[in-house]
Amino acid sequence: TGSNSVETDSQTEWTDVQKKIIPWKNSTPSLELEMVFQDRAAKLGKSNSRLIVVASLIDKPTNLGGLCRTSEIFGASALVVGSLHYIQDKQFQHLSVSAEQWLPLVEVKPSQLVDYLQQKKTEGYTIIGVEQTAKSFDLTEYCFPEKSLLLLGNEHEGIPANLIHHLDVCVEIPQQGIIRSLNVHVSGALLIWEYTRQQVIKQNQQK
Amino acid sequence: TGSNSVETDSQTEWTDVQKKIIPWKNSTPSLELEMVFQDRAAKLGKSNSRLIVVASLIDKPTNLGGLCRTSEIFGASALVVGSLHYIQDKQFQHLSVSAEQWLPLVEVKPSQLVDYLQQKKTEGYTIIGVEQTAKSFDLTEYCFPEKSLLLLGNEHEGIPANLIHHLDVCVEIPQQGIIRSLNVHVSGALLIWEYTRQQVIKQNQQK
Repeated sequence: TGSNSVETDSQTEWTDVQKKIIPWKNSTPSLELEMVFQDRAAKLGKSNSRLIVVASLIDKPTNLGGLCRTSEIFGASALVVGSLHYIQDKQFQHLSVSAEQWLPLVEVKPSQLVDYLQQKKTEGYTIIGVEQTAKSFDLTEYCFPEKSLLLLGNEHEGIPANLIHHLDVCVEIPQQGIIRSLNVHVSGALLIWEYTRQQVIKQNQQK
Repeated sequence: TGSNSVETDSQTEWTDVQKKIIPWKNSTPSLELEMVFQDRAAKLGKSNSRLIVVASLIDKPTNLGGLCRTSEIFGASALVVGSLHYIQDKQFQHLSVSAEQWLPLVEVKPSQLVDYLQQKKTEGYTIIGVEQTAKSFDLTEYCFPEKSLLLLGNEHEGIPANLIHHLDVCVEIPQQGIIRSLNVHVSGALLIWEYTRQQVIKQNQQK
């Protein structure tokens, strides 16, 4: 009954993993994505959220593996990574505890991010950067749209200036300590949680 | 301006670290703790929270180091660990990014936990277990008291049955995915965040 068990578990075959991976630039990416969503939704017995977590700027396999686990647990619709090679990394796999077998993964290289974000805007997503800027919303005050795309920054450089212009909004986590900043996996987890919490409250109000 | 930088930073001398470490069983532990709180509060330019994070059941240095960083950033008043030896572990230090130099650390061995929790109860703390039980509150519905003590479970076994009886309440994080459970650092971070969020909202309402 431990809340934190399942450290390793990878029986599912690689072929099963492969079909969850969606190259973004294929001819009908939206259609393919939708099929995977339905497959997973059926397994989960409920509808998926409309949250996309974009981790293309993140370099460390440990952070990506952790984000994969956390995104899967909160029912995100996809995790976007800079390269699918990370999935074969031992540290990624150790931290993801096989979540990559259930969570749709999309490869979008950093150089493709501007195009990708533009496309998601046309699909109705609000593009949310997790970053401290002069105009950032405080996470305690931000209301997440149902279709939210979270762009996480690089471990050292955050979100580069050329991408900031393509965001609809920046959200920052209010921090009180002397150490300057949270780990990027934790930052991402807090926004994923806050999105989830708000959706749960909305659904309860509609009942 | 990255939100996730500061990966390594440890100029402060070991003597500085030492004075932040509070052996719980000394003659006047409360007094000593209070002095450290004030020191840190002065540095932070604001009052500290009354949140204690108890990680004595956690085994992995990476999880402890991460919790140290996250607890410091959200201004927790102390992190309780099962052994102070963890602080000298390279993996702990890599993940904590020197947060142990600012956050008061208390050593409480797992065998001492019952006594420690009882003492904190008499000091007015609500003892909150992060665990899935039949009676757990959902994190979206739980209202944290100002004086909250979070007890985190072991990576594999959660919180043992003999300790469950000493808790005032259990809180669980609603999880939607196929993977069974969150990493313990992430679980802890979400409760620390939720405590912080609620305190911020209360403080804003009082203005």
